[in-house]
Amino acid sequence: MSTRQDMKKVGIDDMALYIPKIYFDIKDLAEARSIEYAKLNKGLGLSKMAIIDTHEDTATMAANAVAELIEKNNIDPNTIGRIYMGTESALDGAKPTATYTLEMLRQKYAPTYGEDCFLHCDVIDMTFACIGAVDALQNTLDWVSADESRLGIVVSSDNAKYELNSTGEYTQGAGAIAMLVKQNPRLIAIGNTWGVATRGVHDFYKPLRRASKADIINEVLDLVGARNGSVQKYIDKLHETLEVKGILDANEQTLILHKETPVFDGQYSNECYQSRITEAFEHFKKRAGGSDDTSFVNTWKRLIFHLPYAFHGKRMFSEVYTKELSRIGALQPILAANNIETPQRSDFDDDKSFAKAVAYFYKSISKTPEYRAFVKEKIAKGQDVSGEIGNMYAGSIFLSLLGTFEGDYLEDNDIVGEKFGFFAYGSGSKSKVFEGEVQPQWKEVAAKLNITAKLKNRQSVDYSTYQGLHTGNFTESVLEQSNEFVLSGIGAEGVTEGARYYEWK
Amino acid sequence: MSTRQDMKKVGIDDMALYIPKIYFDIKDLAEARSIEYAKLNKGLGLSKMAIIDTHEDTATMAANAVAELIEKNNIDPNTIGRIYMGTESALDGAKPTATYTLEMLRQKYAPTYGEDCFLHCDVIDMTFACIGAVDALQNTLDWVSADESRLGIVVSSDNAKYELNSTGEYTQGAGAIAMLVKQNPRLIAIGNTWGVATRGVHDFYKPLRRASKADIINEVLDLVGARNGSVQKYIDKLHETLEVKGILDANEQTLILHKETPVFDGQYSNECYQSRITEAFEHFKKRAGGSDDTSFVNTWKRLIFHLPYAFHGKRMFSEVYTKELSRIGALQPILAANNIETPQRSDFDDDKSFAKAVAYFYKSISKTPEYRAFVKEKIAKGQDVSGEIGNMYAGSIFLSLLGTFEGDYLEDNDIVGEKFGFFAYGSGSKSKVFEGEVQPQWKEVAAKLNITAKLKNRQSVDYSTYQGLHTGNFTESVLEQSNEFVLSGIGAEGVTEGARYYEWK
Repeated sequence: MSTRQDMKKVGIDDMALYIPKIYFDIKDLAEARSIEYAKLNKGLGLSKMAIIDTHEDTATMAANAVAELIEKNNIDPNTIGRIYMGTESALDGAKPTATYTLEMLRQKYAPTYGEDCFLHCDVIDMTFACIGAVDALQNTLDWVSADESRLGIVVSSDNAKYELNSTGEYTQGAGAIAMLVKQNPRLIAIGNTWGVATRGVHDFYKPLRRASKADIINEVLDLVGARNGSVQKYIDKLHETLEVKGILDANEQTLILHKETPVFDGQYSNECYQSRITEAFEHFKKRAGGSDDTSFVNTWKRLIFHLPYAFHGKRMFSEVYTKELSRIGALQPILAANNIETPQRSDFDDDKSFAKAVAYFYKSISKTPEYRAFVKEKIAKGQDVSGEIGNMYAGSIFLSLLGTFEGDYLEDNDIVGEKFGFFAYGSGSKSKVFEGEVQPQWKEVAAKLNITAKLKNRQSVDYSTYQGLHTGNFTESVLEQSNEFVLSGIGAEGVTEGARYYEWK
Repeated sequence: MSTRQDMKKVGIDDMALYIPKIYFDIKDLAEARSIEYAKLNKGLGLSKMAIIDTHEDTATMAANAVAELIEKNNIDPNTIGRIYMGTESALDGAKPTATYTLEMLRQKYAPTYGEDCFLHCDVIDMTFACIGAVDALQNTLDWVSADESRLGIVVSSDNAKYELNSTGEYTQGAGAIAMLVKQNPRLIAIGNTWGVATRGVHDFYKPLRRASKADIINEVLDLVGARNGSVQKYIDKLHETLEVKGILDANEQTLILHKETPVFDGQYSNECYQSRITEAFEHFKKRAGGSDDTSFVNTWKRLIFHLPYAFHGKRMFSEVYTKELSRIGALQPILAANNIETPQRSDFDDDKSFAKAVAYFYKSISKTPEYRAFVKEKIAKGQDVSGEIGNMYAGSIFLSLLGTFEGDYLEDNDIVGEKFGFFAYGSGSKSKVFEGEVQPQWKEVAAKLNITAKLKNRQSVDYSTYQGLHTGNFTESVLEQSNEFVLSGIGAEGVTEGARYYEWK
């Protein structure tokens, strides 16, 4: 098998993070929901959740991130061959969100680089819950590997929104991350060996729901106490008398409802995450040709996880850690030092109680000083910044990477040539495991990531503002806008109904 | 610049078409809408429109197409590295439709190939209106080019549905096309030179619309003549008294509505199509290094277009044809033979009247015997099958390819080594132009495409059935199902609300 790595280095040359300038403090959410703050902060690692203002959406966040990447690297837009977007917060069912981002960028850079400066730039949306941007990255790595002159951008953008009062509410977040992908990257080269595991499940999804007009009319009539027999006559009347305007009066009998918030089963999704990353890691090892007495868990300097909340990676990984250490004969000393016994099936009456004991066993491992030290060295840097923003869906794994580089930069660590292991996950469900090698120039790039400053340069909002933005009651922006792309209007009817307009402010 | 073509051949090894087993005759539609049938049939090339039954959707059509590809080629699912889907009819906002397709296939093949037979198969949805499957193909070609053992599948699947009575209604269609992508393909090798043109426009799109609950309540109260002052009290009551069930009672103030039907501006979309394919073709020529005295328009044996309706390609192409022939000095004899004069700007008072004259000029060219012969030789084979099915959105360009191979096979033409030119288009908007070379084994593959038999093996439905399926009034299947994947149920509430279940029948 020919591998790309044998031939040339391809990877991420630079990155740019965009986060909304307002956030809601987890302390305030805990108070509003009567949840113990320590459970969210100490237990899950959460501090703040980034929330989008009324003038922001998936397209503006992505455009702001890509613009920073262009400015920082002084890129002529004419040289960008593709901008591939990973998102699960698309703004349209047919037209990719990436085209909105492209048009914003074109307008901004046209005075300098010409009206057609993005004419030959290939854009698309790739959708697979939180793993779409990883898929976009993998495909863009393949694309740049064929030609030294190719320059690609991968951008994640999502608004991770959950129902008020749901168990997902405190994991909310938003933001975009743009990555410059090319040969001979300065930041991190990505290898050609990828482990993949996919199973079609319903752990988290955003279904289109159908609601019949009859049900809606009945619901309203019940509400006002005016229900009286069949509503078919009203539906018929609706169809006879009204023009197509968009709500109840299209010629379908049912409306299709989309929600920004997901249907999800948290516990089941954790199980899917754990199983998929384990299966993808096994697949990776098989392809990479691991050895019997070393483990990537040890040789990888940092582990970069998709983090739906800050501490998710370290919580989910103790099983893989335990199995890998056991495989290479390094587990026994840890068990002995911590008085942990390995549960044996023969000691339990049934599979269920044995499974409980095994789960408890992994939990015990996760509390050992050895696992804590492992987490501190390899995982913790990626957690901190996640706790300051929340879930970024498709961007979360890259936020973890950004946090890791920021942490290593601030500690002035020498990590040139070190390998990072990546554990990506998207609900529905798929995991990809791959590795990267830190490049000699990483530090000059990391110096300009500016993460800490961005986190500081934000304003908190109070509960009523948070709620007003969440429910759509607010239609005016919370903050003034400057030096950023904003949503400036939405078409109302005819051939521009729902058309989205943007500008640079 | 290194090109993939110099190194190895990659392309489409085999294809499988799935079309619904029911159709609505364009004659019957013309009658129902009081449109002259000849306008649709002779003017646009339309005969029948494929429509989906209640047990069908994007995922089942794709799974049926992929299953045929697997069976025909006796593929062990464990060897399929990816199934990439191009669609603008996604069934979920986060979970890709491809995972539903994957799970159907897994269930069908598990008894033979094992429960995990698709575990390491990478799937995703790629979205860019009608060009998503071309993007999926391009990326999958890059992927297989790195490794001889790689086997990828690209599948398009769409339900091209327009509002009743709209000008798009007669162009409707549905279906899926699966393609086996690998090195040393038997059918057609695809070159590494791609022309691309992208502009963010609103010619056709499917926006998410917001409707406030207050508006909906008002609309219902108006309808029943019960409106009486503010409705805020009812909304408050809604929020106080009802559990979250899904229609009016989530905690948002607005509902987000999705429609299966697009907002579109037909005339503008034609202009976008024409401009983008022209720009992408210019880009292709620049990259491919064309010569001054030959044109790809002549050297390409067949031209394969995205066809929103059967005659769209030949209607849109006369401008490119004219300019290319003019460029290589071959236009003059045609103008002379047909008494056509080239309009000169100096003969017209203003730009507008000149533009009209130019449009008329291209139309005149399109009516010459020379252009008709050109169309008959290079474009017509792709049209016929399109007229029997209608628009397939992401699959339309591949339907045109299938029709071409079927036509050449039936005519027993020797086309080995001939080049085909592809003109892909997706609204929103993007075009890609690329070329393929017919491979020595194409005929043995074409012999089993089975297009004509599939077109015959269908049932027509009457107007009331068509309308019932379209508006969602029908909930029972029109046809019995056998030997196919079907939608068997949709979850109603809780963590399975909107979850989709499928089976092989």
